[in-house]
Amino acid sequence: MLRIPVQENDPQPDELIGLAQRLFPICRSITGNGFRQSLSILQEHLPGLRIHEVASGTKVFDWTVPDEWNIRDAYVLDPLGQKVIDFKQHNLHLVGYSEPISKKLSLQELQQHLHSLPDKPDAIPYVTSYYKRAWGFCLTQRQRDSLIDGEYTVFIDADLAPGSLTYGDLVIPGAVKDEVFFSTYLCHPSMANNELSGPIVTTFLAKWLLGLPHRHFTYRIAIVPETIGALVYLNQNLRTLRKRVKAGYVVTCVGDTGEFSLIPSRTGATLADRVSQHVLNQFAPDYVRYSFLQRASDERQYCSPLVDLPMNSIMRSKYHEYAEYHTSLDNLDFITDASMRESVAMYQQCVLALEGNCITRASTIGEPQLGKRGLYPTTGGQVQQSDVSDIVDLLALSDGQSDLLDIATRMGRPISELVRIAELLRQHQLLTIKTIK
Amino acid sequence: MLRIPVQENDPQPDELIGLAQRLFPICRSITGNGFRQSLSILQEHLPGLRIHEVASGTKVFDWTVPDEWNIRDAYVLDPLGQKVIDFKQHNLHLVGYSEPISKKLSLQELQQHLHSLPDKPDAIPYVTSYYKRAWGFCLTQRQRDSLIDGEYTVFIDADLAPGSLTYGDLVIPGAVKDEVFFSTYLCHPSMANNELSGPIVTTFLAKWLLGLPHRHFTYRIAIVPETIGALVYLNQNLRTLRKRVKAGYVVTCVGDTGEFSLIPSRTGATLADRVSQHVLNQFAPDYVRYSFLQRASDERQYCSPLVDLPMNSIMRSKYHEYAEYHTSLDNLDFITDASMRESVAMYQQCVLALEGNCITRASTIGEPQLGKRGLYPTTGGQVQQSDVSDIVDLLALSDGQSDLLDIATRMGRPISELVRIAELLRQHQLLTIKTIK
Amino acid sequence: MLRIPVQENDPQPDELIGLAQRLFPICRSITGNGFRQSLSILQEHLPGLRIHEVASGTKVFDWTVPDEWNIRDAYVLDPLGQKVIDFKQHNLHLVGYSEPISKKLSLQELQQHLHSLPDKPDAIPYVTSYYKRAWGFCLTQRQRDSLIDGEYTVFIDADLAPGSLTYGDLVIPGAVKDEVFFSTYLCHPSMANNELSGPIVTTFLAKWLLGLPHRHFTYRIAIVPETIGALVYLNQNLRTLRKRVKAGYVVTCVGDTGEFSLIPSRTGATLADRVSQHVLNQFAPDYVRYSFLQRASDERQYCSPLVDLPMNSIMRSKYHEYAEYHTSLDNLDFITDASMRESVAMYQQCVLALEGNCITRASTIGEPQLGKRGLYPTTGGQVQQSDVSDIVDLLALSDGQSDLLDIATRMGRPISELVRIAELLRQHQLLTIKTIK
Repeated sequence: MLRIPVQENDPQPDELIGLAQRLFPICRSITGNGFRQSLSILQEHLPGLRIHEVASGTKVFDWTVPDEWNIRDAYVLDPLGQKVIDFKQHNLHLVGYSEPISKKLSLQELQQHLHSLPDKPDAIPYVTSYYKRAWGFCLTQRQRDSLIDGEYTVFIDADLAPGSLTYGDLVIPGAVKDEVFFSTYLCHPSMANNELSGPIVTTFLAKWLLGLPHRHFTYRIAIVPETIGALVYLNQNLRTLRKRVKAGYVVTCVGDTGEFSLIPSRTGATLADRVSQHVLNQFAPDYVRYSFLQRASDERQYCSPLVDLPMNSIMRSKYHEYAEYHTSLDNLDFITDASMRESVAMYQQCVLALEGNCITRASTIGEPQLGKRGLYPTTGGQVQQSDVSDIVDLLALSDGQSDLLDIATRMGRPISELVRIAELLRQHQLLTIKTIK
Repeated sequence: MLRIPVQENDPQPDELIGLAQRLFPICRSITGNGFRQSLSILQEHLPGLRIHEVASGTKVFDWTVPDEWNIRDAYVLDPLGQKVIDFKQHNLHLVGYSEPISKKLSLQELQQHLHSLPDKPDAIPYVTSYYKRAWGFCLTQRQRDSLIDGEYTVFIDADLAPGSLTYGDLVIPGAVKDEVFFSTYLCHPSMANNELSGPIVTTFLAKWLLGLPHRHFTYRIAIVPETIGALVYLNQNLRTLRKRVKAGYVVTCVGDTGEFSLIPSRTGATLADRVSQHVLNQFAPDYVRYSFLQRASDERQYCSPLVDLPMNSIMRSKYHEYAEYHTSLDNLDFITDASMRESVAMYQQCVLALEGNCITRASTIGEPQLGKRGLYPTTGGQVQQSDVSDIVDLLALSDGQSDLLDIATRMGRPISELVRIAELLRQHQLLTIKTIK
Repeated sequence: MLRIPVQENDPQPDELIGLAQRLFPICRSITGNGFRQSLSILQEHLPGLRIHEVASGTKVFDWTVPDEWNIRDAYVLDPLGQKVIDFKQHNLHLVGYSEPISKKLSLQELQQHLHSLPDKPDAIPYVTSYYKRAWGFCLTQRQRDSLIDGEYTVFIDADLAPGSLTYGDLVIPGAVKDEVFFSTYLCHPSMANNELSGPIVTTFLAKWLLGLPHRHFTYRIAIVPETIGALVYLNQNLRTLRKRVKAGYVVTCVGDTGEFSLIPSRTGATLADRVSQHVLNQFAPDYVRYSFLQRASDERQYCSPLVDLPMNSIMRSKYHEYAEYHTSLDNLDFITDASMRESVAMYQQCVLALEGNCITRASTIGEPQLGKRGLYPTTGGQVQQSDVSDIVDLLALSDGQSDLLDIATRMGRPISELVRIAELLRQHQLLTIKTIK
């Protein structure tokens, strides 16, 4: 367990895993009722969450919103009439966006439509075919190996037809219109770390943000389907996002017990990058720093050159980097309530860093006399000064140019601690604090 | 022994330790006759040293010059009437700035006023109480453990009353008004490395500066009480210092045999920083580089944000970093004449680097023909070129933009050597030299 | 053997070593018929090579073109009349630019004119005396040790008289007048790595350049005597070179089997430096990076401050850094055809990097939909994306500011690969390509 300070308004024990248990069985995709149903469960926690529907066929930059997919049932009967693959047993058994079908075919023909993982014989892989009409089933290698010769029946009862794509967002106002943006995606069927952890952690982070007595920044939460949803969101909010977002995060893979990790922005030098590095160095100094080139989620859209939002992704075990990724093994046993709470706490620290950042400027020429203000032990000599080192170091570095994030990083101290010291010194008129424009 | 070149005018053998022996017994503090007496001994070496008195009560930025403290005698009698603590045996026995007292009290009451170091049982600690009226005695842990129960008598015969704070300074003119500033402090009672070494080394450095046939810079020497004296000095010279000081040093802890060490300025990028790093890399490449945050002497004032002088501190064993620090163990056995001479030599190299720095520009297109000028072996082939490598490398890097300090650092050669080569090349009209404004 | 892609038009097997075998026996110097004869052999490969003659006595910046030296015969007869040193056996036996002489003298007198290497007893050293009239002989230490006492006869049949210095150059036009400059030197007598490899590799590089269907840059080839020839070349072309050369290389020591190595430019930050580092990192990641201060060939002239061309030197075993350097041991056994071909290939990669460099800018907001263009596997999920990672990463980094060299370096991919990808994406209208001015 990391030692990230717990904030007021934090989730109750097992509240996060409880929400995961409720959402897990639902078959979500990038469109359809599974996504809607999941979003409305999150809305119970975030009543202000606005639900948007965008019609199939809508042009979205280089893309088009696809038809809506709704699945009712799907199975494969073997030559003996037994259901050897059954969507109702695990929704990963069906290739996402499979078109409806009802057909008899040989095992050989069927094999063309099957997906399994020889090197993970007990895992059902996660496969989709959003933009090319197709159908298919996924199964464990062991299941596949036991299929007998003969005539099979495949049955997929699905609608794949014009409808709409659904997403939710929430804007939590602050003192300024400048925004901090959290985006997460809810389009994966029954998998836990990637991806129920992202929307769950984001939901509880948003609840905490709503409960803050004061917010400097406006906070924007988007819960979208991955890729096409992020593009839709950009398409509908591009000017605002470009103009106002000062820092943002793609929240994903935040539920397992792996080490924290970071995807920086393209330049690696935005405010989000500085905040992420500061907070991770303070609270998870062994974090894994990936390259921007290892990105593979919605920062692909948000950080693309013509969009260029200052976004990072703070994760636990990153997609593509753990064996259970995109298989049925990424299940509820793979995530924990405690890990998701830690992830909430880590993002809270990012928020506190953003909220607390400012420009400080010492007010006295030379050091102030701390003793006469009760800020210093008055008997010098052997006395340890560790208790006042934050005060004197903060004053020494408060040159009116470095921001508090720089100073805290240089001092190796959490900015949240220095915010408290800065306020104390401001009250004693020993420094002035300027908000960063 | 380091191989720092010895300069003309260098101190005679044992001259520095001799001065230390004379100054050591005097009980100095931030005000009072001990400081005055010590300053007047230094004046014997530096007749031009100006003595300044600043009245108690004078406002100095956020501070006020305290009352003057003069101590005549102080002791503690045990229940048997024996002097168990005696200021006359060691002036560290008395807490600096103790108010006068004559009183009987129990051992238990006395303990509230005693200071000792359980982990250094034979050391008397150095304790002061400048800005809060108090009294106290310091003793070794062994002494303290042997105190018997009963009624004690404490006696402190001191004046703590309006008077003045004393400091000395000396401005040694050069060709330009731009200044190099050396500040040291003389306010510690009987301790050797911290702090008699600073004023002693500074005094002999100043003597050498006075003897230089030519000085480009004006040199300013200040010998002050620590903290309040530096603030007084800033208060009385702020505009001049801010405008003219191009590089400066707080000279302290330069007497022991420890490795050289460096406190950089806040930015770490001033001329002083470049000079310090160059000189230390050349003559003490294993030097310890501290962070600016480990500063704890008068650079706290000189480098504070609204003052912002380009100052460093080149030390041997840094305050807080050696076991004997601020105790009776920091005595004359802890420092050596040779170490102080090396420290003088190191600061001389800093002066030579500052004096010799310039912008050089090659005069020929392509390399010059050194052979026809007697600057090159005329038979090529296997001939080693090490003897002319300084010449050709200096010419190759003399682009009219880099300064000689940059070039020397890049070449890994002492700038003082390259000054000589540059002058040789200038005489042969192979490069031009421009003073740095 | 390195895995540097072979280009069309590459030399035939043994073509390079064959040329070396032909050139090796000729006694070249910085002037004279040996240089002319060698140049005319290279002209067989490069008919466009222009031959220039510059009269002795011509002023060249700080230098003067020396008299022309032509040698017919030279030997030493021992007291028994035996030819103990014979120029016709190895032209290194004679000190380059020896004046004519015919004289009898004692062994003791002769010793003043002999050069040998005690630590390399089987090597004849390479010695010259271009700018001071002298004569001398070089021999192995074993030969020297066996000389007997008595009267010796020395005979040097040479002309050292006004004539001219010869060099060749070739300008291969491209789409723009901006130039890439390759300079090499041909003035060494019978030595192989330093220096026949440079002119040979340069000649075959030039042949390949001439065969390129399109050239963006104009390419300039200079084959000069070292130092004085480079100065002459600068003297005659200074304005053009300064104005047009965007990157250049001194081609030397490119024939042995040692690791590749690099001499950067003075700043280490020119286009040539960026190209060299990119190409070497891709194709010879263990290359030796020397400091500019270890330069010792014609970059001494080309990179001198008032000339300041952006030139590097990519070598194999660098002069001064291998035992055989400047001795008779640097012979045809020390170089290989394969090594010289690799060196041609490495410089070809530099050319391809220079030709391919450009500014790319993504055209779509967000990522484009690759699938509908046949650029992406349409079935997502477990599918490996390695085959499209170049495409998505190049698009993600194509911000219209970084050049392709930066992007390729960041991606750790050869720029020549990315040129192909960029062109593919341009054809799909997914990015625009801007030539670098």
